[in-house]
Amino acid sequence: MLEVILVELKIPENVGFIARVMKNFGFKNLSLYRCKIDENSYFTAAHAKDVLENARVIYDLEEYLKQFDFAVATTGVTAESQERYLRRPIFTPEQLREYVRGRTAILFGREDFGLLNEELELCDAIITVPSNSEYPVMNVSHAAAIILYELNKGKYEPEPLDIASKRDVEVLLQSLETLMRKTWFPEHRIRKGIVMLRRGFGRSSFTKHEINMLVGIVRKTLLYMEHIKEKYGKS
Amino acid sequence: MLEVILVELKIPENVGFIARVMKNFGFKNLSLYRCKIDENSYFTAAHAKDVLENARVIYDLEEYLKQFDFAVATTGVTAESQERYLRRPIFTPEQLREYVRGRTAILFGREDFGLLNEELELCDAIITVPSNSEYPVMNVSHAAAIILYELNKGKYEPEPLDIASKRDVEVLLQSLETLMRKTWFPEHRIRKGIVMLRRGFGRSSFTKHEINMLVGIVRKTLLYMEHIKEKYGKS
Repeated sequence: MLEVILVELKIPENVGFIARVMKNFGFKNLSLYRCKIDENSYFTAAHAKDVLENARVIYDLEEYLKQFDFAVATTGVTAESQERYLRRPIFTPEQLREYVRGRTAILFGREDFGLLNEELELCDAIITVPSNSEYPVMNVSHAAAIILYELNKGKYEPEPLDIASKRDVEVLLQSLETLMRKTWFPEHRIRKGIVMLRRGFGRSSFTKHEINMLVGIVRKTLLYMEHIKEKYGKS
Repeated sequence: MLEVILVELKIPENVGFIARVMKNFGFKNLSLYRCKIDENSYFTAAHAKDVLENARVIYDLEEYLKQFDFAVATTGVTAESQERYLRRPIFTPEQLREYVRGRTAILFGREDFGLLNEELELCDAIITVPSNSEYPVMNVSHAAAIILYELNKGKYEPEPLDIASKRDVEVLLQSLETLMRKTWFPEHRIRKGIVMLRRGFGRSSFTKHEINMLVGIVRKTLLYMEHIKEKYGKS
């Protein structure tokens, strides 16, 4: 079970935004340590007002963390510092997935200073979202979105694409071969053309539906050509 | 080269937030189609004001998209609809990475209605951030953060962890064995204990520094014990 702990956020909108992304990714447990919330938090929470309403208020962070199996601090600053060990080693959100266990807390810190050293010391791991060194500091709610997204990856995947099989593609190629023959392509260009297209479709990822749409177009064309021929006689 | 195109965003803060996450992940090209921006956009952009200032304003979306090699629409709604084909097949941001090519545009739509059907029709692919069906709709800037993060993954990874080798662990185990022997553990428990700990450390991912810290503690303990023994004689 995962819990998000916000530490001294000063912008009420951020608390709401984080409640929203939590609900977007199926997380419900939010705790607030010295955070400012007001009606703007409820506005940015949108349909995740329940997450905000059920948020727990913490007064003693160190004491509170003792009940967790694993506590993770987030940081936007990975640069060298005089207390380097405090901010290293640093995981990516992706790496963190292997380590999350039991009751896990993820702490997000102040908009300006992040988590203090004494708060980092309480945590079992530190993560950061890899970002551009030119401007690495993310808004806290966007960092939270990425981390929660990553932790929940694979849980809400959309239906896999129904990719066309080689057999589907061959049906299309056959109909195209027929069309080329009817429209007087020379034999050697037909063979070459079919091979080229087999390679092109081979590298593509058309779905069955998309391939069938192409087959339908070619077949309709062939039928129409038959129809014309019948109507106007063999010319 | 990747360009973000925002379509009729009505909340100026969102445009700024997106400029910021773009810069966080090293993207610079932003285009605005019928978006509202004001001083609040510059506030939420924080240190990405340059991205906002250099944003292009588009008047004809269809015409503008013609210069791209690949255009991707984003949607928060993956549910069944009467025009199902329009919103399928849908990629995840992760899957999209394989397909991005040449000059690619990513379109984000209105906060309330997203992209209109006629805008979806202009695009070569559709992506969505997989989310909880109970509340799938994300704030547009958080969806953008996740998609841009995914597209840039691997570019800004932090230093890999300097994980302890088996050899480092064996040094620790040897010193622990010595300690156990000195503190009168029976032989069979020493052997069992070392095997247990070998497995425990084997499943862990201690860094070299962390293992060395443990070795240091054990060695200091052994030294201290020597010192005591010398001081008080063999008892």
